[in-house]
Amino acid sequence: MTDATANHTLAYNPHVSVDCVIFGFDGEKLKILLIERTISEEEGYYSDKKLPGSIIYQDEDLDTAAIRVLNELTGLKNIFLHQFRSFGDPKRSSNPRDRNWLEKTTKMKVGRIVTVGYLALIKISRKIIFESENTAARWYDVKSLADMKLAFDHNEIAREALKHIRHQMTLQPYMLFELLPRKFTMTQLRNLYDLVLETKSDVRNFQKKMLLVYGLEQLDEVRKDVPYRAPRLYRFNKRKARAAKLKQGG
Amino acid sequence: MTDATANHTLAYNPHVSVDCVIFGFDGEKLKILLIERTISEEEGYYSDKKLPGSIIYQDEDLDTAAIRVLNELTGLKNIFLHQFRSFGDPKRSSNPRDRNWLEKTTKMKVGRIVTVGYLALIKISRKIIFESENTAARWYDVKSLADMKLAFDHNEIAREALKHIRHQMTLQPYMLFELLPRKFTMTQLRNLYDLVLETKSDVRNFQKKMLLVYGLEQLDEVRKDVPYRAPRLYRFNKRKARAAKLKQGG
Repeated sequence: MTDATANHTLAYNPHVSVDCVIFGFDGEKLKILLIERTISEEEGYYSDKKLPGSIIYQDEDLDTAAIRVLNELTGLKNIFLHQFRSFGDPKRSSNPRDRNWLEKTTKMKVGRIVTVGYLALIKISRKIIFESENTAARWYDVKSLADMKLAFDHNEIAREALKHIRHQMTLQPYMLFELLPRKFTMTQLRNLYDLVLETKSDVRNFQKKMLLVYGLEQLDEVRKDVPYRAPRLYRFNKRKARAAKLKQGG
Repeated sequence: MTDATANHTLAYNPHVSVDCVIFGFDGEKLKILLIERTISEEEGYYSDKKLPGSIIYQDEDLDTAAIRVLNELTGLKNIFLHQFRSFGDPKRSSNPRDRNWLEKTTKMKVGRIVTVGYLALIKISRKIIFESENTAARWYDVKSLADMKLAFDHNEIAREALKHIRHQMTLQPYMLFELLPRKFTMTQLRNLYDLVLETKSDVRNFQKKMLLVYGLEQLDEVRKDVPYRAPRLYRFNKRKARAAKLKQGG
């Protein structure tokens, strides 16, 4: 840092927050967990959605803050959580509606906020207790994001999180199984895979590929809660997946 | 954000900075660009090294701040630059020496700093003008980092940047060529590849693989500045690399 820096920065002090993009999968649709925000304005109440997040506490590491947000919101621990990108456009909190809401909820004069984006993957089947009072959290179809105007730059953050999953799939393909129930059908896995990677897999080839690549266990069980012919269930096993990978010379 | 948040955050306001991990390759060694920092203390002068960085300016986006740091330091534009991770341990600036230096250079009372890490790849052969006055910037062998105690948590940031390149290689294998001169020998490429991925490639297989995977152009030129038998030069061409990838069904 040179002396020039000091002149430019003045006494300028941004706040730092974390925002969590939480994905779930219900067997057919990729979902995102959003919080309803209601703001009282002169013309009445205005309501929209935002990502769960928080300004970081004074003695808190970034990861710790993200874990706290997730835990306060869902009651869950041991969630797949991954920092993916920070967002610092000076204009990201310039909307008067967002500034107004910030001042009311934090009871502080808040200037610029730099936020650290976290990606979380949740098994939607886990019992989630939405603990925070006054917080209406709900799952929304990821596809509906295109027609929603989220608070701040949260549309962009959600889009970047989706891109990040897509990229990470090459490095950590097992992350998909964080979104599936422990026992799942091949159709569920294929739906999820195609949603995340924006592909359209061939039914037969997909099954062959998955059994080979991930060393999936085919169970002697079928899914019973469906009206049509009961489909077979599969299970992912990290140890077997690694062995399968080694066999292929990966 | 719930009301509880407001009570915890108090009037607490961290600063935000960017830090750049700049890598170069001299044909044999992977290098990192560090700045010498000299601090006047009671017992005399203390000197150590740090990553180039800066507190972000008031109206500056994160990317813009990183580009500014790079440009001020090297005079270069159009550098491969990539945000890779943010670091926010509350203790990362708790060393009295770091605090002392921060206050002197910024002329501000600086509390906690959250920093956004950027990775930059430079062709070491490009003419670099170290523009910032009072800044002694020099290339150091990445391997020597293990024996150096850098300022703040810069050792950790540099380690994470190295890990990041290793991971990104699966997604953006072409990034290696950002570090090589436009025309390079197969030995240079192999040295670099093995340094980054911590592998030890077989000479013959490596050449075959590189020609196939990256569609490298074999030039009718040899490297002339070496005392031993002049090695052949190669060139990377993104268009040909993509064509090669398609042929392999990638």
